[in-house]
Amino acid sequence: MSAPSPSTLTVRVELGERGYPIHIGHGTLAGLGPALKQHTRASRAFVLTVPPVAKRWAPPAQRSLAAAGLRVERLVVPDGERSKSLRQAERLYDALLAAGADRSCVIVALGGGVVGDLAGFVAATLLRGVDFVQVPTTLLAMVDSSVGGKTGVNVKRGKNLVGAFHQPKLVWIDAATLKTLPRRELLAGLAEGIKHAAIRDARLFALLERELERLLALDPEVMLPFLAQNCAIKAGVVSRDEREAGERMLLNFGHTLGHAIEALSRYRGVLHGEAVAMGMAFAARRSEELGLAAPGSAVRLVAMLARAGLPTELPAFSRRAYLDALSADKKKRDERIRFVALRAIGRAETVPLLPEEILPPGERRGAKR
Amino acid sequence: MSAPSPSTLTVRVELGERGYPIHIGHGTLAGLGPALKQHTRASRAFVLTVPPVAKRWAPPAQRSLAAAGLRVERLVVPDGERSKSLRQAERLYDALLAAGADRSCVIVALGGGVVGDLAGFVAATLLRGVDFVQVPTTLLAMVDSSVGGKTGVNVKRGKNLVGAFHQPKLVWIDAATLKTLPRRELLAGLAEGIKHAAIRDARLFALLERELERLLALDPEVMLPFLAQNCAIKAGVVSRDEREAGERMLLNFGHTLGHAIEALSRYRGVLHGEAVAMGMAFAARRSEELGLAAPGSAVRLVAMLARAGLPTELPAFSRRAYLDALSADKKKRDERIRFVALRAIGRAETVPLLPEEILPPGERRGAKR
Repeated sequence: MSAPSPSTLTVRVELGERGYPIHIGHGTLAGLGPALKQHTRASRAFVLTVPPVAKRWAPPAQRSLAAAGLRVERLVVPDGERSKSLRQAERLYDALLAAGADRSCVIVALGGGVVGDLAGFVAATLLRGVDFVQVPTTLLAMVDSSVGGKTGVNVKRGKNLVGAFHQPKLVWIDAATLKTLPRRELLAGLAEGIKHAAIRDARLFALLERELERLLALDPEVMLPFLAQNCAIKAGVVSRDEREAGERMLLNFGHTLGHAIEALSRYRGVLHGEAVAMGMAFAARRSEELGLAAPGSAVRLVAMLARAGLPTELPAFSRRAYLDALSADKKKRDERIRFVALRAIGRAETVPLLPEEILPPGERRGAKR
Repeated sequence: MSAPSPSTLTVRVELGERGYPIHIGHGTLAGLGPALKQHTRASRAFVLTVPPVAKRWAPPAQRSLAAAGLRVERLVVPDGERSKSLRQAERLYDALLAAGADRSCVIVALGGGVVGDLAGFVAATLLRGVDFVQVPTTLLAMVDSSVGGKTGVNVKRGKNLVGAFHQPKLVWIDAATLKTLPRRELLAGLAEGIKHAAIRDARLFALLERELERLLALDPEVMLPFLAQNCAIKAGVVSRDEREAGERMLLNFGHTLGHAIEALSRYRGVLHGEAVAMGMAFAARRSEELGLAAPGSAVRLVAMLARAGLPTELPAFSRRAYLDALSADKKKRDERIRFVALRAIGRAETVPLLPEEILPPGERRGAKR
């Protein structure tokens, strides 16, 4: 057990009575129990996790919760996107109810985005809503998905099409858990961090350019401020636009093409962050071509992504395939999409564009470029 | 098409920006379209209903919506409690997404409690929440389930254990639709109306005693004020306690035993309102035995229920079976239940009681009594 380091940081998501703190530290998992007691009225915790995380991080998390006086049980789902399903949610409802879960329980998501989205959806809908705490253990979840209250599962027609807004009571980030994260996932998570810097914070972008190597070495002196600044950006956007009526859409930078890439790849072989990296590189270049972005912005962003080992070219699907994927269904080919354009490093805005304008004829893609 | 009658009444549910009106009229279905346009920004409506309602009431409802400029489609689920399932929700997600539903759509629940609960749950979770309008066509839904935002489905372990609070944008009650409701269901719905009067409104109870026959004949002069007063009671409770932290629990009068009866009957052969009627008669008698209710309250309530053709004696399951059902799971035998006790006609309060105190040894039940 390690005591919280002196450099523990806290960012608050301001949402009135639904507001909550994000605690960021290194080696701080032992502090989870007391923090959870402080921010919920739960007497019983169900820790939802996946096997690779369970092995190393569930025991200290559960010890901390038990030491704080909570009755603790563990629920394990298979690792991977396929667990984000209504079927898996139904299994969890059954397990939770069989164990006697009532409104005094809290569901603790210990893992990455899949665990957080699934646990959050189950917490949002079990008994019409029980408390929920996020303990992200992937970089993607730390900088992005654990903050903001978006929960959901996938259905046949697509990802995250069923879900709820259900804010956690607490987000507890222990950056030491990143040491068991595969490097490819670390880099994919970094893509969302680069996104936050690109759309919102030129200073954070400069920090990344200066300190990328120390960040990737998980140096807490760089990692903790980086995580805090990312959470502050996300928290600010979410506080001002919880339900994505306006500003929150900027967080979709790189996601229009990113989602198309994921769909066309059938979610195989490409991680979300990798798809977003390719989507951001494309969006930045297209923003310059359209005269929206300051010249040189795209080169700088693409260089950053490449340095982080992330892909920057669209996979070689046909233009028609991309257009179909952008239109979600073919009836919408004539509808404008709210494309997030880069204006400069640190600034973005939404522009309504037709799919044909996002991907004009003659655009070269993939390995040929 | 009939114009709204001059005696149209409106009750407002005060919930800040989530507040909404309940319109009550007779022969007013043609007014649905304009009202929906006024209270939502939807351009497209999906009307969810069941076959017996679809036949008579879906055509005028859909005509009204189309005349107001909405694109309208109909979704039909089988009649009955079994449709309130995750499986049925999944079918609806698929049908809605296949039809291109997006956040600009509204889901219109045209039917009773099953339709409202299922449609509301799907609206709460499709794309993390789309607009939702209730058009109740059963007395139960008009006086109770269409107001308050409780949505849900049943799972293996019990009814309504999965759901969300999702307030409608509008509740549109056309009392003329009651004329196609089977009489047994009309009476079962009346049970919840008697409940509201018993726990909250001695004048409404007196009105029922005076005008029961005209009410059951669906005379608008009695029915509309009766519906409005019921909605006002429910709306007031919901406004003050949306998430059932306190006062809203009073609405569970008769439901502790009612739910036990439904569970022990496996939801066959007994309607929800009938189970609640038996539960209320039991709760009123027990409240008097415990010295909580003014003498004579139980006799008066039981007489009202009997006059409305509702059952007033518990079915003859064993005491052990009732105790098990009350404890939901057996580990909770030693936990107190928030039993809603009658204090007088028009007044109720919650009392924490052990299952053994609710059903003391020697209590005779059912036909033997």
